[in-house]
Amino acid sequence: MSTPTAALQGEIHRLQLQVNSLRTEKGAEQITVGNYILARLEQLRVTSIFGVPGDFNLGFLDLVEDHPTIDWIGNCNELNAAYAADGYARVKEHSIGVITTTFGVGELSAINGIAGAFSEMVPVLHLVGVPSTSQQATKPMLHHTLGDGRYDAYVQAAKQFTFSQAFLSDKNHAAAEIDRVLIDCITVARPVYIALPTDLVHQKISSESLRIPLTRSPPHNNPQVESFVLEQIVTLFEAAQGDAVVLVDACAIRHDVREELNDFLRKTGFPVYAAPMGKTAVDENYERYGGIYLGTISRPDIKEKVESAKLVLSVGSLLSDFNTGNFSYNIPTTRTIEVRNYPILTAPDLHSTHTRVQYASFPGIGMKQFIPKLTERLTSYHENASEITVPKFVTDVPKEENGDITHTWFWPRIAKFLKPKDVIVTETGTSNFGIQDVALPEKSVLVSQILWGSIGWSVGSLLGAAIAAREVGLGRAILFVGDGSIQLTVQELSVMLRLDVKPIIFLLNNSGYTIERYIHGKTRKYNDISNWTWTSLFKVLGDPEEQLSRTYTVRNKDELSSLLEDTTFASADRIQLVEIIMDPLDAPRALKVQAELSGKTNSYDAVLNPTTATA
Amino acid sequence: MSTPTAALQGEIHRLQLQVNSLRTEKGAEQITVGNYILARLEQLRVTSIFGVPGDFNLGFLDLVEDHPTIDWIGNCNELNAAYAADGYARVKEHSIGVITTTFGVGELSAINGIAGAFSEMVPVLHLVGVPSTSQQATKPMLHHTLGDGRYDAYVQAAKQFTFSQAFLSDKNHAAAEIDRVLIDCITVARPVYIALPTDLVHQKISSESLRIPLTRSPPHNNPQVESFVLEQIVTLFEAAQGDAVVLVDACAIRHDVREELNDFLRKTGFPVYAAPMGKTAVDENYERYGGIYLGTISRPDIKEKVESAKLVLSVGSLLSDFNTGNFSYNIPTTRTIEVRNYPILTAPDLHSTHTRVQYASFPGIGMKQFIPKLTERLTSYHENASEITVPKFVTDVPKEENGDITHTWFWPRIAKFLKPKDVIVTETGTSNFGIQDVALPEKSVLVSQILWGSIGWSVGSLLGAAIAAREVGLGRAILFVGDGSIQLTVQELSVMLRLDVKPIIFLLNNSGYTIERYIHGKTRKYNDISNWTWTSLFKVLGDPEEQLSRTYTVRNKDELSSLLEDTTFASADRIQLVEIIMDPLDAPRALKVQAELSGKTNSYDAVLNPTTATA
Repeated sequence: MSTPTAALQGEIHRLQLQVNSLRTEKGAEQITVGNYILARLEQLRVTSIFGVPGDFNLGFLDLVEDHPTIDWIGNCNELNAAYAADGYARVKEHSIGVITTTFGVGELSAINGIAGAFSEMVPVLHLVGVPSTSQQATKPMLHHTLGDGRYDAYVQAAKQFTFSQAFLSDKNHAAAEIDRVLIDCITVARPVYIALPTDLVHQKISSESLRIPLTRSPPHNNPQVESFVLEQIVTLFEAAQGDAVVLVDACAIRHDVREELNDFLRKTGFPVYAAPMGKTAVDENYERYGGIYLGTISRPDIKEKVESAKLVLSVGSLLSDFNTGNFSYNIPTTRTIEVRNYPILTAPDLHSTHTRVQYASFPGIGMKQFIPKLTERLTSYHENASEITVPKFVTDVPKEENGDITHTWFWPRIAKFLKPKDVIVTETGTSNFGIQDVALPEKSVLVSQILWGSIGWSVGSLLGAAIAAREVGLGRAILFVGDGSIQLTVQELSVMLRLDVKPIIFLLNNSGYTIERYIHGKTRKYNDISNWTWTSLFKVLGDPEEQLSRTYTVRNKDELSSLLEDTTFASADRIQLVEIIMDPLDAPRALKVQAELSGKTNSYDAVLNPTTATA
Repeated sequence: MSTPTAALQGEIHRLQLQVNSLRTEKGAEQITVGNYILARLEQLRVTSIFGVPGDFNLGFLDLVEDHPTIDWIGNCNELNAAYAADGYARVKEHSIGVITTTFGVGELSAINGIAGAFSEMVPVLHLVGVPSTSQQATKPMLHHTLGDGRYDAYVQAAKQFTFSQAFLSDKNHAAAEIDRVLIDCITVARPVYIALPTDLVHQKISSESLRIPLTRSPPHNNPQVESFVLEQIVTLFEAAQGDAVVLVDACAIRHDVREELNDFLRKTGFPVYAAPMGKTAVDENYERYGGIYLGTISRPDIKEKVESAKLVLSVGSLLSDFNTGNFSYNIPTTRTIEVRNYPILTAPDLHSTHTRVQYASFPGIGMKQFIPKLTERLTSYHENASEITVPKFVTDVPKEENGDITHTWFWPRIAKFLKPKDVIVTETGTSNFGIQDVALPEKSVLVSQILWGSIGWSVGSLLGAAIAAREVGLGRAILFVGDGSIQLTVQELSVMLRLDVKPIIFLLNNSGYTIERYIHGKTRKYNDISNWTWTSLFKVLGDPEEQLSRTYTVRNKDELSSLLEDTTFASADRIQLVEIIMDPLDAPRALKVQAELSGKTNSYDAVLNPTTATA
């Protein structure tokens, strides 16, 4: 279906659902509220629900356990479950992540994971089992309450970190409420919250609405504004004689324009670069792809190419500190065209999208429908554009005398190990920075959390990513994580063993929080952690005889290279953990620079040196 | 210092601090804001600060690491740190627990632990390192933000779960703000929140206020109201001819009236019983102590004694479901006198305390000053009171043919192992219920979370409790936890190894969430968990050679009894873990009854059977 038709069809579905909920159908086939939710999730291609059982969600879990196509993934704790739902949603395009927790204790344990999904624009449903509607009314001092009758405290907190909420209280409005928040979830790519009282789970409602699919298409762009903007941009391209580059970023992935973008690139031939959060939106071995632009932290040739172009078409930008080399872009606004979604929470802007041309803003002009029109008008530049040279984004494995595994050597060496369709998860810390310096194979997917940056996230996320990768026919799931971060969420490896997913975990053992050593407190004890016996971990977590897993420790380049060349290892036929011994004070180049900038703006020495970050 | 004098002295300190902050002293000795906080914490006898480093709190952590009397306890994750701060505060009387986290990601990971401290009335300071004051003003898109400029989202969430908050933004008000929330923390025994921007940590302020100690005494009772209430109560005792019992509950512990209460009991001779949350407020081997009252779930002889008394003096009641046998007290209001703190959040009631006599309420009459006056007037009943018989609270170890370790046998057997001054931590689940059936030794301290009931809490809490026990000269720290619950927070054992605390961990391995099997889904898969190799856990978590720890698995009564009789084991000279194999469907008596009641009120079958809990 072409994009404008899809938008109109989406509008029809939205209206049909409204009509339906106003009619509150009664005659039709009946379904329980719990199963209505599951039917909607099935339509959204959800096949796994993450979470932890608790006494207010057990009734719903009966339905999940009995569901023919949706599996219950019992996690070790709720934060890990939220991270897993986030990882699942990132890898399984056009679906959502779902986490189920219990009132108070469970939902609050998950809230950091939900906030991360909000920050990074990941569609996640947080479904919370809550006391019955009669208890909601009388507010007895139940366990899991604050003891003062404030039954609404948790949803008040959730409002800060979810895009919309439905506190179900009446079966007659349940279907409409469920549909409303799920449509928000899929159209704005943010987490949403449903509170499901125990007694509503099994109450019967009409299943009529289920016949109308939930629409994910954004609202239609105003055609007059759109053609006005189009002309403006075409004029700028004319003036620049097609000397333009494309810069792709997070929202191109999150708001689902990769297909439109890649079509634009192929047809126009413009060079393309990526911000860290846009990495793998465009295949990194695409001939017109030049690598990662990160302001002053960029590789010098990339920096020069991007900053000297007469026009930069920025697609889905997200200008956070770690995504921009600490706000060090050097691209004048007069040379910038931005198509993107506008990440604002306030209600009137809910679905708004946004295009900027130099200093002018055009609210309501969304990139999904706009990019194809831009493609049509700019195809004629293909010949000009093809003449613009693009640096080759390859990083050779350096020759180093010393056998120690350094970051400078490690990431290029790892790049040779990676294969098309691999799903690569990197943790906040050295890994998020190291991976930026190397090109990833075609159709590989990079999953990282550069804006939110919650340490430990990658381990939970890996679980969801690995399940999703298996479902959608992607390749190996591969994690890069430090010894500090993995300690936060380590128990989730036990769930991976139980589910028989087979990720490869590269554990960078550098004796503590290396990213923080670079920001502040290089030799401080608070950046030290206990050293664990990583090679015995799977034995404890559910594989006593080591029949399901393998573990390795590598201490130098030769050991690591031999392992990477081992075909059994590379086949990822079991879950595997590779402990890599590294120097606590070694770090990727980009991290060293970023941390220096970030440490300065943290202003611990503000009295002496009151510097400030600028946005 | 006698109680009324202390109250007056407290009032003087409060006023002196106000005067001081209005004057904003400038001439005096200077101290940094960070060290001002530490100086206050030192005055409150804090010697350990829990948390996880993050780039916005590193500057403050420098000060902690350099502090001569306060130690930094780096936890494996923030939720565990919050639980540890809670456990520390519960055991270390007249001090507080402190947790330090970083902006957004760190503080939100801890929020369930903070909410638990709120619910259960535990004084905890949550100190959050946040971006600099200039960044707070300009709101750049920093990592750990939501990407939409809402820098206040986290404190908005914190407001739901802390009693008061100070978002420091100006050094001139910093001391007054810090003092305000710390006074709240210690007087109302609830968590409070301080946000400390990076640039304020090292800014200098006057240290003048530090000379005035923070007051913990509650406001003075109105003498006229107090004597009116006193006369009413004396009249009731006269009418009842002293046929009264005392029922002690959570708030007697949380609001620090144990000393006053025990003096009352010794001087009047009235029998005393405890609710589960009041257990160990009065020594359980005290000759006039009769055991645990839990409504219909009570042991029949205890139920009869409490419910047939002509008067029940209830001290610090907290009438939650799991603390009252699912709201099954059978004590008419006409026979009830309640002295307690009133757990209401709204501002006008902040410091309010509360006495009830039959149907009459007397707000503002707090128990700390009131109980000594009651003692004085009721001492004359000693002879009468002494004649009231009290059931002996002992539970013999039953003889059972079968060698399996059952809950019926386990708890009385364990009771024989416990010693005076032991600190006993029990997890939500079978342990919280099992421990109720047995008497604990004199001066032992029971730490449990019966209202909030967050699974996994006990493991983090054990760390804090063990550190506090070591500091204040209490005995062994002993944990009872199930295999389901420990998986949520297991990594914290690694911190215990590093700190050389030596708890004994009884791990009840019953193959899943047994408490939930009783509530709903007895044989459901969602109540299963992976079985871990518990005996290898310490090897992984920092003791590869097993020189610091010991682990055991016991499968029958004889094995457990032999171990308990082993003097080396009992001496707790190392951290030890005992895996106890139990039947997944065995549970303590009280849990079976409670779960049945609780499962009913969850109304999963509400359409057929719409029962409701009543408060």
